[in-house]
Formats: sequence, structure tokens, C-alpha cells
Amino acid sequence: MVDILHRVGITAPQGAVYQALTSPDRLAAWWTADTRGDGDTGGVLEFRFAVGGFDMKVVEARPTERVSWEVIDGPPEWIGTRISWSLRTEGDFTIVMFAHEGWSEPGEFMAHCSTKWATFLMSLKQLLETGTGAPAPDDLRISDWH
Amino acid sequence: MVDILHRVGITAPQGAVYQALTSPDRLAAWWTADTRGDGDTGGVLEFRFAVGGFDMKVVEARPTERVSWEVIDGPPEWIGTRISWSLRTEGDFTIVMFAHEGWSEPGEFMAHCSTKWATFLMSLKQLLETGTGAPAPDDLRISDWH
Repeated sequence: MVDILHRVGITAPQGAVYQALTSPDRLAAWWTADTRGDGDTGGVLEFRFAVGGFDMKVVEARPTERVSWEVIDGPPEWIGTRISWSLRTEGDFTIVMFAHEGWSEPGEFMAHCSTKWATFLMSLKQLLETGTGAPAPDDLRISDWH
Repeated sequence: MVDILHRVGITAPQGAVYQALTSPDRLAAWWTADTRGDGDTGGVLEFRFAVGGFDMKVVEARPTERVSWEVIDGPPEWIGTRISWSLRTEGDFTIVMFAHEGWSEPGEFMAHCSTKWATFLMSLKQLLETGTGAPAPDDLRISDWH
């Protein structure tokens, strides 16, 4: 098993970061504009991109500390993997510890997703600090795989 | 052992990307302005930041396909880890496969470095595509750890 890990610090209240991970409208403002569903525990969130998308079962949504999802539909490499967000406050920052766990192998697609997650975390940070994120389809293009 | 993996595509010739990974002047234009040393096989590169830095032994510099470094000085978590860059051309893109391998544990510092590497890869891409990168000390701030 292989994991993707990231850490960012956002100068916004922990509650605002938590909301950006659980409200479909707020998720749509930094990850993908086409986001629907229910971000509370037991709900399903549907994220759609120009090509394909992901369905996530919300395993845990514990205000304002932790959110975790299980991927129930999407690319084969993603199905069954788990994505989690742990939040805590340190001084002026909300620290976000991100993990995308359970990849079966460390291949080129995982490497792409690792870089892409980092840029979406920057979009989340930008949304909360400036009011404007960069969700798909206006996300930062990192390669031929977009 | 845990690895950081990233993948980016850069619309620049493979030779230009290779040069940006082996020439101290070009490394200084996207990673840290305070870069010195010798980027050829057997050389040592010294990267300095506001707090601390890294010394890398160049294990391999094979034009224009692959560069790998071993960390010989720096933060304890980095010493002995290996950083590699594999390049290939696909259509208009030079594909960069990046790996930072040999971390002893997947901790918070590794997560920070994973995100930070992604933003420096974006700086490398920006340098080659627009002529201007964002090397330290003018690098993108991602958290309280900078």
C-alpha cells in the first residue's frame, strides 16, 4: 500500500476550512465546479470533471476536526482508496493534514494525482484566504494529463 | 520506506529541462536562489534557504534522461534519502517523473515536503514555459512552515 500525503496551513478559521470540505457549494469553489450530494457522515458526494469523476462515501465528518471519504466510484486505481483531512489550529493557521491512502502501486497515475492534489490544496487555501479558488474546469494545468 | 512521487509535463525541450536540473544557475532560478556547486555526475550541489539547506551528491546525470541525487547533508529526515528526475518527451511535453525516496516514516514533515516539492515543480514548469520561476526566498508560502 502506498499513500499520498500533503500538509498545508491556511490563515482562516478551522470552521471555515471544515465547511469547505463538507458543503457541496464550497467544495465546488475549489475542487470541481460540478459537485453535488451530501457531505455529512453517511452521505455521498459526486465530483465531476470534463472526463469522468469520483463518487465518495462520507465515512466521517466530525466538526471541525476530521473528514474522511471512501472512493466508491471513479477510475479503477481510486476505487476503495480513502481520502482524509485532519484539521487543527496553530496560531493564525488552520493546519490541514491530507492523506489519500490505499493505492495498490506507486505508478505514474499516482504521481500525477499527488501533484494534482497539491495544486487543489493551493486552490482551497486561495479560496479561504482570498475568496477565489481555482476549481475545475479552471484548475491549474500541470501536464498533458491536465 | 515511504516515497514522495510527482509527475508534471512541461512544454519545453527535454534538453532545457535537463539543464534546469544540472546547471547551478538554472537550479537557482526555480528552487533556491542560493545554489552552488557542480551538477554533473560525482559533483556536489549545495542548496541554501533562509533556514538551513541541503547538500546533494550527484549520483547520476545522464543527458538528457535522468538525474539523481543523494542527500549527504541537511535535516536528519533527509540524510540518505534519494531524489530522482526521469525525463522523456511526449508530443509537445517533456514529462518529468519525480521521486524522493527512502523516507523512514510518513510523518508531518514528509507531508509538508511533498506539497512543497509540488509547488517547486510548478516553479520549474513556470521557469521553462514563461522565463520566470519562483525560487526561494520568493517561493510560494504554503503554511506556517513556509
